[in-house]
Amino acid sequence: MTHGRLPRVLAFDVFGTVVDWRGPIASESGLFLEKIGHGQIDAGQFTDDWRKKYLSGMAAYAKSGRAFTILDVLHREMLEATLRDHDVDPATLDPALLEDWTFAWRRLTPWPDTVEGLTRLKRRFPIVTLSNGNIALMLEMARRGGLPWDAIMGAEVTRAYKPDPRAYLGTAEILGLAPEDVCLVAAHHHDLAAARECGLKTAFVARPMEYGGRAAPDAKLAQDWEWSAESLTDLADQLGC
Amino acid sequence: MTHGRLPRVLAFDVFGTVVDWRGPIASESGLFLEKIGHGQIDAGQFTDDWRKKYLSGMAAYAKSGRAFTILDVLHREMLEATLRDHDVDPATLDPALLEDWTFAWRRLTPWPDTVEGLTRLKRRFPIVTLSNGNIALMLEMARRGGLPWDAIMGAEVTRAYKPDPRAYLGTAEILGLAPEDVCLVAAHHHDLAAARECGLKTAFVARPMEYGGRAAPDAKLAQDWEWSAESLTDLADQLGC
Repeated sequence: MTHGRLPRVLAFDVFGTVVDWRGPIASESGLFLEKIGHGQIDAGQFTDDWRKKYLSGMAAYAKSGRAFTILDVLHREMLEATLRDHDVDPATLDPALLEDWTFAWRRLTPWPDTVEGLTRLKRRFPIVTLSNGNIALMLEMARRGGLPWDAIMGAEVTRAYKPDPRAYLGTAEILGLAPEDVCLVAAHHHDLAAARECGLKTAFVARPMEYGGRAAPDAKLAQDWEWSAESLTDLADQLGC
Repeated sequence: MTHGRLPRVLAFDVFGTVVDWRGPIASESGLFLEKIGHGQIDAGQFTDDWRKKYLSGMAAYAKSGRAFTILDVLHREMLEATLRDHDVDPATLDPALLEDWTFAWRRLTPWPDTVEGLTRLKRRFPIVTLSNGNIALMLEMARRGGLPWDAIMGAEVTRAYKPDPRAYLGTAEILGLAPEDVCLVAAHHHDLAAARECGLKTAFVARPMEYGGRAAPDAKLAQDWEWSAESLTDLADQLGC
């Protein structure tokens, strides 16, 4: 598709797009489940259950009327709910262990092309996060993984969770830009669709391993995005970086 | 003075501490004054007058009851007020020129030791801004000057201007840290004094050229800060980076 003028800023979804979540969370959850004496629970299934609570939780957040609460706190609540679903009472567990387990989301690892791709894209475009992750989470992840963000933006800065339009529009506004000057880069069609509704440009990055090789839950929402890339280095090629 | 445990994050004042403002603003203002046919106005004096409005404006902000407004907007208002003080009616000028002049604050230049100092400090500590500058301003300045921030925080993120305690405490809270785990690095005693009141650690960096070699207006507020350095590279030496 023709994509007209280039964006002035690239704003990135992070979980799944920039870093892998399923591999690292399953790996850490396996160790934690073992540690609490529940090694029989399947860590991959546990991880998918935890993530499913996130996806439905975020979609419902704006309607819930709940005051903005950072993702570290929601991740903890969702971990405890997932444990209960698996017949484990989190009240019997060490709170420090639960916090450490929750913070596994701060320790996610970049996809193999991520650091090179971001570094190249950054030469030409400011690169910012437009993630639901809170600032402390994004900061720790960036330092561990060498993610060279120009700024950490998104949910905590706008006080709204994607796919709430305020998360996208607020990020553009804070940057002092019109929505069409910002391009969301994401591996998720539902995220890109919400950004396009707000007038942002859109760049899809395929992450076939996000769900361990299975189809993504939003595959049916695919559209003809302004850019479509196989990796962040491929996106850098396409954008002339 | 003994300074006990090391901080976990270094949070930087920017205007005057990380970048020079007087040289670049006087230089750009000289060109703009010439352009609008008022080359007879002394650009250095004009710059000091503009900055004075900022210093008094920020000190009074919390009491003013005004809803949070980003610094780019306040810089513009203060520029227009400074022009009026010099008998120039800003309503007669091109708004695009006034915006460009205002954005001179986005184009400030790092002190000679800044990039090396920040780069070394960043190896050991997360480095964030704790400035009154808004995100778009800090982002543009960082990309122009090569300032390797881990995150842009401060006024726009906390919705409060230093020296309002909420700017310091809110930054620590968003980082998920106790105030004493954050160290403000600043060239200004009044800023450090306000941070210390909030429980933050403090590091003074001498910037004798900030006022063109004249004494700083807050020199009388000097205290025995946890660290006191001649430059950011000196601070890196002292912190073992």
